[in-house]
Order: sequence, then C-alpha cells, then structure tokens
Amino acid sequence: MDLTRREFSRLAGTAAAASMLPRAKAEEKKIGWCIVALGRISMDHFMPGMLQSRTGRIVALVSGHRPKAEQQAAMYAVPDNAIYNYENYDRIASNKEIDAVYIALPNSMHAEYTIRAAKAGKHVLCEKPMATSVADSQAMIDTCRTAGKKLMIAYRCQYEPVNLKAISLIHSGAIGSVQAIESANGFNIARDEWRLNRKLAGGGPLMDVGIYSLNASRYLTGEEPGDIRANASVVDHDGRFTEVEENVGWTMKFPSGIMASCNTTYGGDMNGFYRVHGSKGMIELSPAFGYEGIHLRAQIWGQPPIDMPSPQHGYEQFTVEADYFADCIRKNKEPRSDGEEGLRDMKYMQAIYKAAGLTRL
Amino acid sequence: MDLTRREFSRLAGTAAAASMLPRAKAEEKKIGWCIVALGRISMDHFMPGMLQSRTGRIVALVSGHRPKAEQQAAMYAVPDNAIYNYENYDRIASNKEIDAVYIALPNSMHAEYTIRAAKAGKHVLCEKPMATSVADSQAMIDTCRTAGKKLMIAYRCQYEPVNLKAISLIHSGAIGSVQAIESANGFNIARDEWRLNRKLAGGGPLMDVGIYSLNASRYLTGEEPGDIRANASVVDHDGRFTEVEENVGWTMKFPSGIMASCNTTYGGDMNGFYRVHGSKGMIELSPAFGYEGIHLRAQIWGQPPIDMPSPQHGYEQFTVEADYFADCIRKNKEPRSDGEEGLRDMKYMQAIYKAAGLTRL
Repeated sequence: MDLTRREFSRLAGTAAAASMLPRAKAEEKKIGWCIVALGRISMDHFMPGMLQSRTGRIVALVSGHRPKAEQQAAMYAVPDNAIYNYENYDRIASNKEIDAVYIALPNSMHAEYTIRAAKAGKHVLCEKPMATSVADSQAMIDTCRTAGKKLMIAYRCQYEPVNLKAISLIHSGAIGSVQAIESANGFNIARDEWRLNRKLAGGGPLMDVGIYSLNASRYLTGEEPGDIRANASVVDHDGRFTEVEENVGWTMKFPSGIMASCNTTYGGDMNGFYRVHGSKGMIELSPAFGYEGIHLRAQIWGQPPIDMPSPQHGYEQFTVEADYFADCIRKNKEPRSDGEEGLRDMKYMQAIYKAAGLTRL
Repeated sequence: MDLTRREFSRLAGTAAAASMLPRAKAEEKKIGWCIVALGRISMDHFMPGMLQSRTGRIVALVSGHRPKAEQQAAMYAVPDNAIYNYENYDRIASNKEIDAVYIALPNSMHAEYTIRAAKAGKHVLCEKPMATSVADSQAMIDTCRTAGKKLMIAYRCQYEPVNLKAISLIHSGAIGSVQAIESANGFNIARDEWRLNRKLAGGGPLMDVGIYSLNASRYLTGEEPGDIRANASVVDHDGRFTEVEENVGWTMKFPSGIMASCNTTYGGDMNGFYRVHGSKGMIELSPAFGYEGIHLRAQIWGQPPIDMPSPQHGYEQFTVEADYFADCIRKNKEPRSDGEEGLRDMKYMQAIYKAAGLTRL
C-alpha cells in the first residue's frame, strides 16, 4: 500500500476538514508526535494515519537521511528545526510541541530510543517486538515508569474492530468452550532486508510476524500459555537465512487446555490468518492481521453464518491506535498493550526459540 | 449424511443401469465384498458407495446384530447364508463369492479381523487407524503377506480428486518451495461413542481424525516427518475424557525444512482443513477431509485464483476407493496406501503421543 500523491491530498483534505469541526473540549490540544525512523511503516501507514486523527498531529521527525526527512517534513508541515537525527535525538527534550514518540526503528534499536525518549520526558509508542532481549524490555518498562511516561507497544490488532469482534464472540460464549486455534503469519522476504540481520532484528519471522499469532492466541483466549513446544527450520538455502531462521512451528497449551498451533515464515506470503474452534462453532479471520481487508467469518452451528469484513479503510488502524494512546496520555490510563504486555511476548518468544533449540533474546 | 430410502432406490437404479453396460473385459468378474461391522461408515457410506461400483458388489455381511444384518442383507441382495457373526466369521473362508473384506470395526479389533480374513484367504481393506499398536500393525502386514493377500488401509483422501489436485499443484512447483502447512480435524463427540473407550479406540482424536492431518502433511510434502513436538489436553471436564485425550496439538519438521502445525479435537467440529504455504503461492482445502464438499482454493501470486470444488457426489469417494483396491487385486499391484503406509502413521502417532507425554499405541 503506497501512499500516492492523490491519496495524500485526499487525506490532507480530510484532516483540514476535521480540524474545522467544533472540539468536544477546547482544552484538548492535539498530542504532538515525533516520528522516529522513516521506514515503510512510518511513511506508508502511521504518518498517513495521523492525518485522519482528531487527537494527534506530527510535529517532529527523526531520520538519518536528511533529504528524505525534509521531503516528509514538507508533506506534514513539520518545521525544519523539528527534524532530528540519531545523534541529536536527545534534543527532543526541549521541544515542547512533542508529547510522544513513535518508534519504528529496527528491533535492536527500540530499547535505546525508547529509553532516551522517556528520559527526554516523552511518552512512547513502540513497534513490536518491543526489543531484542528480555533485559532490554525490562529496562524500557523501568525507565518509562521512573520518568512517569506512558509506554505502549503497537499491537494494532488489539484495537482493530474485526479482531475485537472475534474476542467478544468468544467471551460471550457464542462458540462454546474453545478447544483449539490455528494461526500463521509470514511473508517472502527480500534479500536486502535489515530483518535478516540478527544483530538488528534479534531473530527471524517469529519476532517480526509470528508475534501476531502468538499475541492473538493470548488475546483470543484471555489466557497465558503454559507448555510450549516448537521447531524451526530453513527450507531455502539461498543465502538469506544465515543469521535468522526461515520457519518456526510451535504449539502452546493454555491453562484451560486450549491448544494453539502456529507457523511463521520468511519464505512465503501466508496471508496471516487464524481459526478458533469451539464446542458450538468456529471463527476464522482471513486475513487477520493485515493493514486492510481483515475479514471475519464465523459459524455457530445451527445459526446463520456471521460475515464481518473490516469497516475500516486506508490507514485507519493506525489512526485508532494513535488515538487510543492519546486517550491514555490525557486520562493517565495504562495502555492495554503496555510494556508488560510486550515483555510477556518477549518471554514467550524466548521460550519458543528455546523449545526449538535456538538461542535468541 | 443418512441414506434415505429414496436415495437408496436411486443408487440401486444406477447400479442396475451400470450392470447393463457392456463390459470392457468379459472376464472381469466383480470383486465380492464382505462388510465387517455394520456401523455408520459401512451403512451410510461404504455400502451405498458399492452400489455405484462397476468393479465390486456386496456378497456377505458380518455383524453381531442379526436383525440389522438381515435388514441390510435384504437391501443389498445378500443371501441369508452369507450373513456371518463374530463367532463364525472364519467360515468366510469357504464362501467363494467373497474376494475381499472391508473392516469397519472399532480400532482395537482391526488387527484380529484382518488377520483372520487373510488366513481365510481374503484380501483386506481396513479402515484407519489400522490398529491400536505398532505390533498389531506389523502382525497384520506379515500375515497378509504370508497369505499372499492384499492389505489396503482406507485412506480415502489419497484417492480423492481435490486432494490429488493439491498434491499435483505442489509437485508441479506451482506454489514454489513449500514452507509450512497448518491443518486441523476434529468433531464434538457424543458421550456414548466407543471412540471414548481407550481399550476399543487405542487413543483419542489423534488416532481417529487427527490422522487425516498427519497423513495429509505426508502426502502433500511427499516427505516423512523427522522431529515431532506435541502437547495434549482436556478442556471439557464433563466425564467424556477420562480414558482418552480431548485435544492434541503438534508440529512436525520434514527433512526439507517444511513445518506442519496441526490440531485435533473431540471437543468441537473443526470442519477439517489444511493450508499449504509456498514461496510462490498458497493452497487451502476447506473442507479437506469430508465425505462430500471438499473444496480447493489456491492463490499463485500474480495469477488468477484457482477454485476447485469436488466433482464427486454422494458416496463416490468410497466407490473410487473400492474400485482402486479392486484394480490392485486384479492386477496384483501393491495399493498405494498399503499396510506399510498405515504402519508409518502408527509410528508417527506413537511419537506424537510420546512427545505430548502420553502413553499410547
């Protein structure tokens, strides 16, 4: 999903229109966001999503690539003196326009830039996986807590309406006692991705995209996995997988007895999905994790099928995620997907890797 | 799928019409089948399937329930003196009309009645799982071999056109290098099923329905699984699962690196499916294992989607399976799903149970 000039103009128009609407509370100043790293997820998703936000706006950028930063700054009306690089990043402390940072760096840099942001007095929305070690994750939590700043991990599916519908169907008992979940998420990775560099990524597809299946198994069941079994492999001996694994398959047993069996890969597009089987019916989300087009189909035996395509369009998942964090900041609420939530996944991923005989995290 | 009187009449008419068609070879006498056990799969599936067969006919029945046997005998024109029970079963030896037996007994009785059939000079088509122990499976193979009789395990999906299409798409390279498979199969079991009795069934859903996912992972990849990891559980503490497990989740790593992650349950209808992910596309069969309605959807990236519903109707899977075995008998060919194939699954199921900490088989 590339952001074309035409789309950008449309979104910018929407934002201008939205800004003219009467505010519920005059004192609710928009949260000022500083975008840390201008990669695909920032430029193609989060930043366009901010244009639709009633609660936030982009006020600063951090990038190692000045021309790209200037181009983006022009698009989002960010002043020149609010373009930072990785050396002078700590100066964000003195920029009062910045309330929160959005960290979209390679995984191994999440901890450092989260910690520096908290020390600079900024709230942090950090992409998943939150870090590349359990110790770093804990340090991020501790530093944000000490600084009195919010830390949210960007588990956008926890705020996405179709996933929320699946959760509510399960919790209402509509599909009876849940027995089992299958889930997979993966893509065919390009040779030049930083994700293949173990030092930058920490691990392979499990940390990057398998984490969606792991996190979904937890939010769907509302339970924490106990016994974890796993395997990892490389299918394509083409030079891409010298530092990280290509495939991981794992099973998790939850306290109630629910079994989750999952796969993740860097070797093929899996069109990330899950199926949840209960005694009275089943729910499938296919796709379940995409930026657009998430689709629920449920069958409760003896009842008409339920079909729910995503009501969202464009960059709305990111808008909703940012708006939720803004609400947490304003109301001093702990985000649902806080640092502790991110840390739990780090520990489970560590357990999955260990069960597969790999040393990670 | 219950066989109504109306359906039966239609099928019987088809059979009569088929019998009037000129034969390819006059000497190809129909294979005479003896049905061993009159349960659902015999009465509702295999026997109706025989009515459509050009290669076989039902000539004898074995049942412990004489009135039911007489009723079925009348429907299929089986003479009174060809109705056997479990005591006088060995007398099938002297019935020259019987070429082959179809064993649809509870799992724990497969070995005994296969061995007695082979000793009586009959070929054997035995339902899966082939037995309840590796030793029994080996004894079945050895006895049939010594007797010079064919032994086929009734893996009907190996002869089913939509599953065969999936296999051929994979083997043609259409979806590129295969990375991962997810599969599940299960149903919500009634309290009074013999399948919940460990002595009769040998194990729980893994042996009964999970075996489909196991076998599919093998025929889709054309490889034998190496490293197996597994977990088992009970969700519903309602008295059904005192002797066998309710859920099993497992992963299998194949020599090429392909990962298969599977679930099976006796706690909910899973509408048995599989997804196969390759570097160039993916294949989903949903449902994959049913008696009817098997449906393939494939996406080869950059090409139009492939949609293949089953071309078969009614009991045709069983007709095809029986016709294939008839061909093996006539041409003295070893069936593709022979005793050795059944034994391999027994050993893998034993490994899955062992990995899950359960003692079975």
